[in-house]
Amino acid sequence: MKRIVFVRHGQSEWNALNKFTGWMDVDLSEVGLKEAHEAGRKIKEAGIEFDMAFTSVLKRTIKTCQIVLEDSDQLWVPEIKSWRLNERHYGALQGLNKKTTTDKYGVEQVQMWRRSYDTLPPLLKPDDSNSALKDRRYANLQKRVVPMGENLETTLERVIPFWEDQIAPAILDTKTVLVAAHGNSLRALAKYIEEISDEDIMKLEIPTGQPLVYELNDELAVIKKYYL
Amino acid sequence: MKRIVFVRHGQSEWNALNKFTGWMDVDLSEVGLKEAHEAGRKIKEAGIEFDMAFTSVLKRTIKTCQIVLEDSDQLWVPEIKSWRLNERHYGALQGLNKKTTTDKYGVEQVQMWRRSYDTLPPLLKPDDSNSALKDRRYANLQKRVVPMGENLETTLERVIPFWEDQIAPAILDTKTVLVAAHGNSLRALAKYIEEISDEDIMKLEIPTGQPLVYELNDELAVIKKYYL
Repeated sequence: MKRIVFVRHGQSEWNALNKFTGWMDVDLSEVGLKEAHEAGRKIKEAGIEFDMAFTSVLKRTIKTCQIVLEDSDQLWVPEIKSWRLNERHYGALQGLNKKTTTDKYGVEQVQMWRRSYDTLPPLLKPDDSNSALKDRRYANLQKRVVPMGENLETTLERVIPFWEDQIAPAILDTKTVLVAAHGNSLRALAKYIEEISDEDIMKLEIPTGQPLVYELNDELAVIKKYYL
Repeated sequence: MKRIVFVRHGQSEWNALNKFTGWMDVDLSEVGLKEAHEAGRKIKEAGIEFDMAFTSVLKRTIKTCQIVLEDSDQLWVPEIKSWRLNERHYGALQGLNKKTTTDKYGVEQVQMWRRSYDTLPPLLKPDDSNSALKDRRYANLQKRVVPMGENLETTLERVIPFWEDQIAPAILDTKTVLVAAHGNSLRALAKYIEEISDEDIMKLEIPTGQPLVYELNDELAVIKKYYL
């Protein structure tokens, strides 16, 4: 059986502070750690055995991935970390309080930034202290590849090549695959796998810490979808 | 500068119980966890930035590796897990108490098993419940590759191809590399890097939890060797 399991990371320290996070490398909160252990317990109980694990280069998903693997007794499973599975880059909004931002720009504008498929957030400047260009982990990327702000559309454009080159070939090789990632990188993958329209995708909310299992046929079309 | 850092995992639950461990997937003890955090702290203080990390498929080194990376703020560094970095396989001695074994076979025999370069331990049977053939993580290896017991010589023979194909190319690519592994897989690497004789190698004891730094020239010969 071909199978992929999504685990969306749980609460981070900035979720708790109601801040826009995006590519900022914020740690899991105590609640987020508990959510990861809970996901690991469910996967262990379901007896799911992984052959490969994929995660982003942000510690909240890497830790979620490692906790899930350890708690289900398969910490040895190969794990690939890629910037392509990072959260949507929230541009100049990163680090701002959501409430303060709403007071400043109005509910409607903030709603557009958060919920529209193709509206970009205000972009970061390349030399901003929060710019990913200043971060060693992106140093081997061409500058023009490093985003200064993304919408779901541009997020999807950089997530899907990773699906095509790494995740899909692993599944086609009859491997059961874990993807521990973020709300929007998982949304991008779900859109692609389930062929969800641009209009409908923003309504899809994958809950945190609840493993989502897709059983797939040989064409990687969905046979069955369920939460553990 | 070309550089490799060894971290030998600290105390496991079986070290504490004085048992032969080898390929048994025993967890770190509380002491072992502390040793890993201590190694991470030293690496952070030394400001060492890794580009790649390598570890075995046994959880005591994987956790050591992940703790070191997390505590030095570089959990995103790519990590490759390989059976070739596993501890020396201790054959039928795995799981036995060292004291009981000495009482049964005599000090001299046990000393030979532990300290001779080329004496094999009593071999496991392929269908023994401790056999690695029963373990999913080795399922993609040809049966004849899976050891039933190793000495340091045969350990070295399976460690070095991993050095040649994965670790050395990474260092030659001017990467700083972390290897979190075991007493004997690190001993095998040290023998190769430092060109230590068969007679002398068994005297080399790399302390646990103390990062060992090698600075290497373009031929990967040792320029400098020191502990943090």
